[in-house]
Amino acid sequence: MKDIEPDEMNRRLWLYDRIRQVVRRYGFQLVEPTTIETLKTLEAKSGPAIRNEIYWFKDKGDRSLGLRFDLTVGLTRIVSNRSDLPEPIKYAAIGGNWRYDEPQYGRYRYFTQWDVEIFGSPSPLADAEVISIGAEILRNVGLKDFIIRISNRKLIEAYLNQLGIRQSKKLEQSLRIIDKIRKENRAQLEKELAAIKISKQKISDIFTFVSLNGPPKTCLSKLKTIEIKDEKAKIATTELEVLADALDAFGLTSSCIYDLSIVRGIGYYDGIVFEAFDKAGDVGAIFGGGRYDQLCKVYGKRDLPSTGAAGGIERLMISLEQANLFPTPLPIAKVFVATVKTDLKEHAIKLATQLRENEIAAIVDLKDRNLGKQIDYVNSAKIPYLIVLGQQELQTRLLKIKNMSTRTETESSFDDLVSKIKSLD
Amino acid sequence: MKDIEPDEMNRRLWLYDRIRQVVRRYGFQLVEPTTIETLKTLEAKSGPAIRNEIYWFKDKGDRSLGLRFDLTVGLTRIVSNRSDLPEPIKYAAIGGNWRYDEPQYGRYRYFTQWDVEIFGSPSPLADAEVISIGAEILRNVGLKDFIIRISNRKLIEAYLNQLGIRQSKKLEQSLRIIDKIRKENRAQLEKELAAIKISKQKISDIFTFVSLNGPPKTCLSKLKTIEIKDEKAKIATTELEVLADALDAFGLTSSCIYDLSIVRGIGYYDGIVFEAFDKAGDVGAIFGGGRYDQLCKVYGKRDLPSTGAAGGIERLMISLEQANLFPTPLPIAKVFVATVKTDLKEHAIKLATQLRENEIAAIVDLKDRNLGKQIDYVNSAKIPYLIVLGQQELQTRLLKIKNMSTRTETESSFDDLVSKIKSLD
Repeated sequence: MKDIEPDEMNRRLWLYDRIRQVVRRYGFQLVEPTTIETLKTLEAKSGPAIRNEIYWFKDKGDRSLGLRFDLTVGLTRIVSNRSDLPEPIKYAAIGGNWRYDEPQYGRYRYFTQWDVEIFGSPSPLADAEVISIGAEILRNVGLKDFIIRISNRKLIEAYLNQLGIRQSKKLEQSLRIIDKIRKENRAQLEKELAAIKISKQKISDIFTFVSLNGPPKTCLSKLKTIEIKDEKAKIATTELEVLADALDAFGLTSSCIYDLSIVRGIGYYDGIVFEAFDKAGDVGAIFGGGRYDQLCKVYGKRDLPSTGAAGGIERLMISLEQANLFPTPLPIAKVFVATVKTDLKEHAIKLATQLRENEIAAIVDLKDRNLGKQIDYVNSAKIPYLIVLGQQELQTRLLKIKNMSTRTETESSFDDLVSKIKSLD
Repeated sequence: MKDIEPDEMNRRLWLYDRIRQVVRRYGFQLVEPTTIETLKTLEAKSGPAIRNEIYWFKDKGDRSLGLRFDLTVGLTRIVSNRSDLPEPIKYAAIGGNWRYDEPQYGRYRYFTQWDVEIFGSPSPLADAEVISIGAEILRNVGLKDFIIRISNRKLIEAYLNQLGIRQSKKLEQSLRIIDKIRKENRAQLEKELAAIKISKQKISDIFTFVSLNGPPKTCLSKLKTIEIKDEKAKIATTELEVLADALDAFGLTSSCIYDLSIVRGIGYYDGIVFEAFDKAGDVGAIFGGGRYDQLCKVYGKRDLPSTGAAGGIERLMISLEQANLFPTPLPIAKVFVATVKTDLKEHAIKLATQLRENEIAAIVDLKDRNLGKQIDYVNSAKIPYLIVLGQQELQTRLLKIKNMSTRTETESSFDDLVSKIKSLD
């Protein structure tokens, strides 16, 4: 796993701030679930298969524990056991997660996600709100050109049911294969579907079905031409209709596509699902999510219909880097206070302390270096302003502030120094 | 391990911000070392004994890994392998750490620390700077009444050497016992020292020695009356003299005490050491640290004299709560946009979107509730302002903004709404 070095850390802190701004505007509260969960909690919905994909171990008390692999599980566990909170409960988190994956481009064993969840609303308005937050986060970090692909898991499930794929394991396998549609070529997916004993004709039908997409209302009209007898399909269509109107109200219609190939890989989704893509980017979905009405019941006594969205910080960073959207990094400090002789160090510290008290980042020499070496450091650390303290400056109480890139100097008294430096760019 | 719920999360985010403000003023760069290290890295200085105190496990590739137990080890590992950075390297981090401790008051198995480290300066000016940052962090979160106790490990080591305690294991054991002086009573510590075969007379001498304390310069004068032949003691005294002048320059003298009982428990310290205490608090040290000139060599080819300070966020939070220093929590949103009838929801969403675009936190109903239920929610969620949208409001384009605590209403046109709400407290 990798360390986060200064430039990346500054970018991350900037991103986290921009994300928190957005979630707060929607009335979400920030929380953070525990990093270590019992293995039982982590397995609750995904089954023991998840063990192959996570970091888990026995602690000294022989309990099986694991590092969280997403934030949704923890947030759901928290609210499932609380009945004192006014609903809907709107929780957001930004935090690190661990997966024992093979690392790939934009995907790491330790990764950070932002996550928003709404617990306690069955309405597609809630789905629209989390989609809107996702879109707003992208806009708030400068990404304008993205597309959100939306479907309803109930729809594809109803269609697969109608094709005779009803057994839950086979259904799950089919969905996992369809989920790879934007990553693998069709021939490969056909092979995988055939391997789980789906006939050639049905495979062809499935591909026709999931190729249906278009602007929300256009897609809904096309959908009406396909007959699916299952009651679930009717519910799914109604949900997508309500959602389409809500997306309109959120001003999102032009950024959204209904696309029946969107199914989401993770097992707990059971309604509206979505994935967003940076049109210029190449890192896959930059956020995704959907409805998981059955998950809360698994962790607590409560039956809380829920929906949420999450996005990977590392992928978002790749998109922002490619589009050159990160702000210019600030210098590590604005001023270096150098001394002509080492016996004046304490005067430098006093001056730097005064600057720091006035919120100006200042550095003094900590290595007993001579003036030449101090200036070498100022250059290599790219500190924009330099003040040199000597006997003369201490006697006259007059200082020179040197701009290291233009090589020009500004004169200042000790008393005016703070306001002089604040006025410099 | 515990989840961080909204009130605590807000307090933490506030604290992290205040801490980052301070470290940046001193020209520190924020970084974050990886959460999982090889067991070899974690054991490098402390030896295999550390296994009993940390979370470690074998991964699927049979590598022994462990969760970081502090930030110093990771930061040191990072810089030990870099020779391209201008020195001194000043790195800071705020991050979670894991220890397999028995949880106690103010001490948890998962805890967060702030941490500042200066690599590449042997001068006590660097020690003074990290002490100053610690003090400034406390002041910047509102704690004024604290005391920083400072010593030099070389001094107590030289004294113990002179008493004939020279073997490194016995020396380490003695220091660990002395380290408990503020937690255990003297009789208990005497018993423990006797158990590692230190004579009664020597135990008495040790207690006399470590009871020496006072304002920096007073303590240094007293120290001159004790004869320690070891060369290390002379170096230690000189370091403490330079430090005393630097603390003066930083304006810290009145907050500092030299106290020979300060030794720090962790094995890697080898020079100036310090611990800070909230005078009103009862949680032990709220920050501590010191010099560890030999640690970098353990991780890399470089010999970098280093010093640093770290503080526990959980303990700091207890101190701040006891002193009532946290800011008043903000409401989860400023406005709730309610609708008289559910078919007006989209108008509510549009209005809320407009408010959010202007950085006003707004909530709309996501549960198809009637007006009465929406108002119940506004009350229980303590949202300060309410707007009710009905046919009349949509036709007249006039709204009422209701203050939920005073029960007064302000009228506004749709166009003026943003500025009206911004002007309300």
